[in-house]
Amino acid sequence: MTIRIAVIGAGLMGADHAKIVAEDMPGACLQVVCDMDATRARRIAEAHGAQDVMTDPEAAIARADVDAVIVASPDFTHAPLSLACIAAGKRVLCEKPLSQSVDECLAVMQAEQAAGARFVQLGFMRRYDEAYVQMRGALQRGDLGRALMMHNFHRNVETPAADFTGAMAITNSAPHEFDVVRHVLGCEYASIAAWQPKRSDARVAPVVMVLETADGQLVNIEVNNNAAYGYDVRAELVGEAGSIAMNPVAYTRTDMRLASSTGYDSDWRGRYAEAYRRQNRAFLRFVQTGAFPEIGADCWDGYCAAVVAQAGAKALAVGRKMPVEMIARPEFYA
Amino acid sequence: MTIRIAVIGAGLMGADHAKIVAEDMPGACLQVVCDMDATRARRIAEAHGAQDVMTDPEAAIARADVDAVIVASPDFTHAPLSLACIAAGKRVLCEKPLSQSVDECLAVMQAEQAAGARFVQLGFMRRYDEAYVQMRGALQRGDLGRALMMHNFHRNVETPAADFTGAMAITNSAPHEFDVVRHVLGCEYASIAAWQPKRSDARVAPVVMVLETADGQLVNIEVNNNAAYGYDVRAELVGEAGSIAMNPVAYTRTDMRLASSTGYDSDWRGRYAEAYRRQNRAFLRFVQTGAFPEIGADCWDGYCAAVVAQAGAKALAVGRKMPVEMIARPEFYA
Amino acid sequence: MTIRIAVIGAGLMGADHAKIVAEDMPGACLQVVCDMDATRARRIAEAHGAQDVMTDPEAAIARADVDAVIVASPDFTHAPLSLACIAAGKRVLCEKPLSQSVDECLAVMQAEQAAGARFVQLGFMRRYDEAYVQMRGALQRGDLGRALMMHNFHRNVETPAADFTGAMAITNSAPHEFDVVRHVLGCEYASIAAWQPKRSDARVAPVVMVLETADGQLVNIEVNNNAAYGYDVRAELVGEAGSIAMNPVAYTRTDMRLASSTGYDSDWRGRYAEAYRRQNRAFLRFVQTGAFPEIGADCWDGYCAAVVAQAGAKALAVGRKMPVEMIARPEFYA
Amino acid sequence: MTIRIAVIGAGLMGADHAKIVAEDMPGACLQVVCDMDATRARRIAEAHGAQDVMTDPEAAIARADVDAVIVASPDFTHAPLSLACIAAGKRVLCEKPLSQSVDECLAVMQAEQAAGARFVQLGFMRRYDEAYVQMRGALQRGDLGRALMMHNFHRNVETPAADFTGAMAITNSAPHEFDVVRHVLGCEYASIAAWQPKRSDARVAPVVMVLETADGQLVNIEVNNNAAYGYDVRAELVGEAGSIAMNPVAYTRTDMRLASSTGYDSDWRGRYAEAYRRQNRAFLRFVQTGAFPEIGADCWDGYCAAVVAQAGAKALAVGRKMPVEMIARPEFYA
Repeated sequence: MTIRIAVIGAGLMGADHAKIVAEDMPGACLQVVCDMDATRARRIAEAHGAQDVMTDPEAAIARADVDAVIVASPDFTHAPLSLACIAAGKRVLCEKPLSQSVDECLAVMQAEQAAGARFVQLGFMRRYDEAYVQMRGALQRGDLGRALMMHNFHRNVETPAADFTGAMAITNSAPHEFDVVRHVLGCEYASIAAWQPKRSDARVAPVVMVLETADGQLVNIEVNNNAAYGYDVRAELVGEAGSIAMNPVAYTRTDMRLASSTGYDSDWRGRYAEAYRRQNRAFLRFVQTGAFPEIGADCWDGYCAAVVAQAGAKALAVGRKMPVEMIARPEFYA
Repeated sequence: MTIRIAVIGAGLMGADHAKIVAEDMPGACLQVVCDMDATRARRIAEAHGAQDVMTDPEAAIARADVDAVIVASPDFTHAPLSLACIAAGKRVLCEKPLSQSVDECLAVMQAEQAAGARFVQLGFMRRYDEAYVQMRGALQRGDLGRALMMHNFHRNVETPAADFTGAMAITNSAPHEFDVVRHVLGCEYASIAAWQPKRSDARVAPVVMVLETADGQLVNIEVNNNAAYGYDVRAELVGEAGSIAMNPVAYTRTDMRLASSTGYDSDWRGRYAEAYRRQNRAFLRFVQTGAFPEIGADCWDGYCAAVVAQAGAKALAVGRKMPVEMIARPEFYA
Repeated sequence: MTIRIAVIGAGLMGADHAKIVAEDMPGACLQVVCDMDATRARRIAEAHGAQDVMTDPEAAIARADVDAVIVASPDFTHAPLSLACIAAGKRVLCEKPLSQSVDECLAVMQAEQAAGARFVQLGFMRRYDEAYVQMRGALQRGDLGRALMMHNFHRNVETPAADFTGAMAITNSAPHEFDVVRHVLGCEYASIAAWQPKRSDARVAPVVMVLETADGQLVNIEVNNNAAYGYDVRAELVGEAGSIAMNPVAYTRTDMRLASSTGYDSDWRGRYAEAYRRQNRAFLRFVQTGAFPEIGADCWDGYCAAVVAQAGAKALAVGRKMPVEMIARPEFYA
Repeated sequence: MTIRIAVIGAGLMGADHAKIVAEDMPGACLQVVCDMDATRARRIAEAHGAQDVMTDPEAAIARADVDAVIVASPDFTHAPLSLACIAAGKRVLCEKPLSQSVDECLAVMQAEQAAGARFVQLGFMRRYDEAYVQMRGALQRGDLGRALMMHNFHRNVETPAADFTGAMAITNSAPHEFDVVRHVLGCEYASIAAWQPKRSDARVAPVVMVLETADGQLVNIEVNNNAAYGYDVRAELVGEAGSIAMNPVAYTRTDMRLASSTGYDSDWRGRYAEAYRRQNRAFLRFVQTGAFPEIGADCWDGYCAAVVAQAGAKALAVGRKMPVEMIARPEFYA
């Protein structure tokens, strides 16, 4: 029985999800593409053979011929639309963040707990990236001994928007790092400190963060949204017995003009294409079976990312380390 | 309209194809799994949700509810089953080789030309491998200037069979190299020479080949079926202005015990998984549209591989360079 | 005219310096090896053909047939012996640190300024390491645009001593990083913060530091004295237009047992052998010409390292960022 | 007692040798620089502080105040000047080749044997290159099992001379490969075959050689004198249990403009600087002790290189494999 999916939001991410549903999720079909801009929705719908086009997300969620939902609309809609999915009893793959508001995250968690079942999977797709899978595996096998530190670097060619700020680097870009590091290390954050060097121009400078975990590990995160040279994500997990690091993946190497070089992508699309596919297929199995994906991110993970991002933005503003204060993890999300 | 596919042969390759049809070819479904060993066919069919199981390949090809065929049965069946598919007017993705017999290759080509349309795509999946795609692209863009040489290395941990011979390294393993090099360089072979070093044990030693192309390029191929250390394929295309080489792909790097290391696979499954997916999706579009895949291999390619393999085996036996003598390329395959 | 050198200290470092004088500094000869342990001094003297052996460093410095001095005795002797060299009017290559005491560093600076000439070169040999030379060159050529950050990692297999502490990682190991980063960036530190993760055993845990420079750059330093896997130094300089990083140097790569690996050294000897040679040859030219080596470290550099190390140790102890407060740079050291 | 060295030939290689004698061979001094062009000789002599300048090599060899000789004059003088050194009872480090004439090589061997002692060390400096040292070591330790193949690539940016030919690639460039492979494998060649692809311009095309050793190993050598992209030497030794390959050495890696790159040198000077130093220091010990350097090349090695080069040039000319026919190794060179 084919799972009929509504994709809400027909921007860059929504278009990617629509394509994945159409081309890489056998067992699913693209039932509806919904966007408040009907033209945009139609373009995506036609490109990937969707049955229907809508402009009202709540109506799309409510449709009897929609079995599951992917939310890729603007960030502020994530929590309300997730709540609508829970209310409609439909599983939803919600792009990150669940919300930048801690209270909204808590509200979705409460609704989901009240409903008594898992409905929301969050789009922290890096958990499905092969490099992180291998790093987490090495740690769990005990190869590296106890984890001591994790160093993380996230670099874009340039910021998506001219008015991007250091605080936004923490609240919008860093959550992917916050989540995947928690996932790999298997523990929560206790504190966060943040710095920015000075640039010579008006662009947003990199943000460097140091976090302590509740288990006494250190996590370094650099988010450099104007790295200029390429899209580049690096990570190294340092254990007591050794270290495992992300290796740059390049299919070919070119020797020309006194240099041997491999290429960087100009954006994140290629780098995480396979992770998105794996994540979305895991979501499909979740819809089919009701069993939450083993390495999937849930509302608790969304809440944790929101709390640490908020503490990080404050740490950057005040210039000193801030505690990361969270509620106890509800049994429901254990 | 879903394309219903029969997979013939339920061995290692057949199982892989059945899995790809079931999981990675939206728009296709696994209609029949056919193997002379019904138990084996049933196991694969159940694993991937095939509609039906059969033991007679000709009957499977003839079924009205089968739109297209993937042939992954033993090598000697490839040509006869391809002929059966042509006769039945059904498109077939035939695993390599088309045949080790040059005459059989010619027979299939004649049947296809007589039928007046393309029916047979050959499973030289390396053409779809991202590394070769990039190498070919660099050559076509002119980055490297004129191609001068191509160096190729194919290494397995150990031979599939105890009675594997050097001649079999040429006729069974090397055809992948023969084909993809022709494809990347865009020209035909003129001669081939072959050597084997001596091993200290009874295992088959590597075979080293040097080929000349009709355009005056040199091609080196090492096929080392008992390389011991891992599954490893390397290639370098040397042009007048520079060089492009396959880069080893590893997602992580581990630092332990005074070494920094990346892993090798123990077989070819992982290395070419994506190439198989791309190839099989190209086959699906071929079935849907009738347009032969732009970079797909056809019967002419199968014939060329058979001719050069035969000349190579002879060169190894007699200890000197042999010409590669081929018919003129029929207009049909231009 | 051969420069006659006295090497003071016949431990590990002194033995290396004696060897370099004897084998890699044409124009110099090993006149005296001096150590309070006469047996140890004699062993080194014999190994490298020194003329004489002594146990009193002040007497060695005073000898008429000694033209220049290399101080490689215990840390606490560095400042007093440098003062003795200044008093004797002899140039000295003093192993780092000049002193861990800021006041002692100031005292040597004052003596040198009073003497009216440069006498002391400090053994921050990393400035002569090819990787740092290239990183500094790239920055100076403007290839990378303005420097924004420098990430530095220093890892040993295990601590030299059982009672090594986190503070000692900052005061004894990190000065090499403090100095070379200042040298590459060409600016001074403004603040330092420090952390340690928790280990599961009694060994000293890594120390992670974040420093701000007076020009608004960020510097990350990890000193991991029990990294277990190998001796490993890494550095990356991030500019506004791109990045340059130290590349691991390995002469060969081995493919065995499903891994492709390069080796790590078990200690620092090999990694910096060439930097020591270059540094000591620069010292020889300093002795011969009186012109202080262009990229050599001097007493001011020793003072700077002492100040930041002291601030770093305090930052680690109190758990918050400390300012790095220095005197104005004397004109003499400009 | 300082060894007084005469350097004969003040071209590129002679200048390098003079520099090494002056700066990197403590225990030796540069006594004489000799070149038929007195101006050129004087320039090098002044640059490196030689005592004297001469234009007559035989006279230079005969001087009472010359203890040993380095011959770096044109190739055709190597054998006669080596003979002169033997006659004068002086040890000589003779640049490769000993001679391109097999007969001349034999003549020098006979003179040396008649003299009853080793006098001639040949400048096959690659034996001292760390990469080959490690490859040979791995083989001797048995890590790789029995050696099966060695793949070798030698690439220059462009040919030294406009009238360079494929035969010269074999007789002038390839001898370094011929020698170091023999040295690493520890056996002699039995046959050689050679090919050239076609270039689109008048420059000399690469030469590809396949050699068989007497022990049944295969050796591939590519000499590409117009590789355009950089000076690049590669080698891989394939054993029954694994493989060891030369790793490219780069001190830094740069990330800019969507590429991560390391640099190539534009000529061989930097790549083998350390090998030359090691070789020349080994020569000094040979002069001092009379014991021929353990891994040094001698007249037998020069003879072997000449024989295989001659066979290779013939193989290229006639288009088929040629035997490598050598005399039995004299006991003297065992």
